[in-house]
Amino acid sequence: MTATEIDVLGVGNAIVDVLAEVDDDFLVAEGIAKGGMTLIDTARASALYARMPPGVEVSGGSAANTMAGIASLGGRCAYIGKVAADQLGAVFAHDIEAAGVGFATPPLVDSEPTARCLILITPDAQRSMNTFLGASTFLDSSDIDADLIAAAQVTYLEGYLFDRPEAKAAFFAAADIAHRAGRRVALTLSDTFCVERHHAEFTRLVAEVDILFANEGEARALTGEADFESSVRALAAHCPIVCVTHGANGSVIAAEGKVHPIAAAPVERVVDTTGAGDLYAAGVLYGITTGHDLPTSGRFGSIAAAEAIGHVGPRPRQSLKALIGA
Amino acid sequence: MTATEIDVLGVGNAIVDVLAEVDDDFLVAEGIAKGGMTLIDTARASALYARMPPGVEVSGGSAANTMAGIASLGGRCAYIGKVAADQLGAVFAHDIEAAGVGFATPPLVDSEPTARCLILITPDAQRSMNTFLGASTFLDSSDIDADLIAAAQVTYLEGYLFDRPEAKAAFFAAADIAHRAGRRVALTLSDTFCVERHHAEFTRLVAEVDILFANEGEARALTGEADFESSVRALAAHCPIVCVTHGANGSVIAAEGKVHPIAAAPVERVVDTTGAGDLYAAGVLYGITTGHDLPTSGRFGSIAAAEAIGHVGPRPRQSLKALIGA
Repeated sequence: MTATEIDVLGVGNAIVDVLAEVDDDFLVAEGIAKGGMTLIDTARASALYARMPPGVEVSGGSAANTMAGIASLGGRCAYIGKVAADQLGAVFAHDIEAAGVGFATPPLVDSEPTARCLILITPDAQRSMNTFLGASTFLDSSDIDADLIAAAQVTYLEGYLFDRPEAKAAFFAAADIAHRAGRRVALTLSDTFCVERHHAEFTRLVAEVDILFANEGEARALTGEADFESSVRALAAHCPIVCVTHGANGSVIAAEGKVHPIAAAPVERVVDTTGAGDLYAAGVLYGITTGHDLPTSGRFGSIAAAEAIGHVGPRPRQSLKALIGA
Repeated sequence: MTATEIDVLGVGNAIVDVLAEVDDDFLVAEGIAKGGMTLIDTARASALYARMPPGVEVSGGSAANTMAGIASLGGRCAYIGKVAADQLGAVFAHDIEAAGVGFATPPLVDSEPTARCLILITPDAQRSMNTFLGASTFLDSSDIDADLIAAAQVTYLEGYLFDRPEAKAAFFAAADIAHRAGRRVALTLSDTFCVERHHAEFTRLVAEVDILFANEGEARALTGEADFESSVRALAAHCPIVCVTHGANGSVIAAEGKVHPIAAAPVERVVDTTGAGDLYAAGVLYGITTGHDLPTSGRFGSIAAAEAIGHVGPRPRQSLKALIGA
């Protein structure tokens, strides 16, 4: 790709999701907090998988889902993330390339297997994620392709990845390359637990970020504010564009002293909220990078999120381009 | 399991399905005959997969789907089939065990990978299957557990498996063990191409079979009869119970000189016909082995098939036991 060819470059944990429907009792018996993301080790992954119902395997990973969403909207994008040289790694690589997203990160050989996220969907369509990170955490600065970052209008970083020192260094390096090239950096806070675990560094990273994504819990965790509106204002003081989702209430986008309320798009049947936040970010980033105003970009985000909520799995199954009427 | 514990034992190709939605032009460009099953080699599997859209991985395999259906109906069942000791093999083993089906066939080590079926779903909900058999064909007589066969009311064999000489020998061996133990043998013809390729041996095998499953095309291919009714009569002359599906028209079950018409069950939205025949067999076999008459068993088959047609993937997602009102 040449310097003018990319709208958004995503950087994140390359993960294959294993989705299964369970009842609330299963979460209680397994001690799983509903709606959150928990990192699990090999032993826990084996034990939990053995007790899970039959599953469906689909490619996932937060930033990867967002890139698949942007591609479905008609945007040009690429992805950097680490799989292993194994069957699930091949599945991940196939799926993201087949979605129209450039992907060339070399796989990890003879080490950890491709990351898996055991996602338990309860009858209320809520998803509870249990992530075995495997190969995905072996992404380091050598995988951060400076030419690709310089070629992307926006480099989008996933907070989930912000854990190991090498990955943190890669994040700051990516932000530095982007800004030197006159490009923008976007970040999703990803999870309340991530924010709490790396609070000081997230605060420092947010200061480098041009477009920030968070949900209400993450916004409050980072700012320490007690309510939604205060947390949005606090983030907007540090960051040019702040997008905060508010569940079924929709979202707000704060920029240049204004707060734009964004309505949620109607969903015929709420099936599985996996990927809703990822596709919201896809719609907003597509809108911003293709010259739309913030309320329109927010509307694209709501439409994309609604599509994800209407089926099992985190990536779009319908053409998002058609859904936004483009 | 002890001798009284199993209703049905399934023997078949252990396969993980890769499902993707395509338009009719894709089938034409790839030279794929709609609705059929084509065996493909490693090179073709790689080339076709590379051109396929993003997929969903779910455990499949015709007889394995049938066993998952019987378990969902509340029946007791087990499965014999060969996966490799790899990630997709682990997925297959997890899913069938988690569905409540006994599975203890040792995996193939250091040889071919687990079988995959690339299933292309067109907008008319028809599925076109491209099967890379991999490890599944390495099932041989040593995997046929005589105690398990003797413990099962019915041993259900999948015609797809009936290809290599070792597998054919395993089929006849299984039928012999079952009959010596006073048990019944069921067979599905699986595919018109299978029937045509091994016509003489299928004819010989059918003579050993107590319960036969076929669709219209397979019934006509085996009997050489030109129409549906004649092919049913011809099969019924050789086999005590003959169940022949007739697409949206439902099916018939012929036994003891009578032909019972079985109505199709209503389907709210036809999404994907993958697994419809497999779950029809599940309903019928569950009915027969739990003492129901043939019209009732047929009705269970229609209800189970309708469930499979209403979603992507070949195995039940709702409790079939609840759907039949048991």
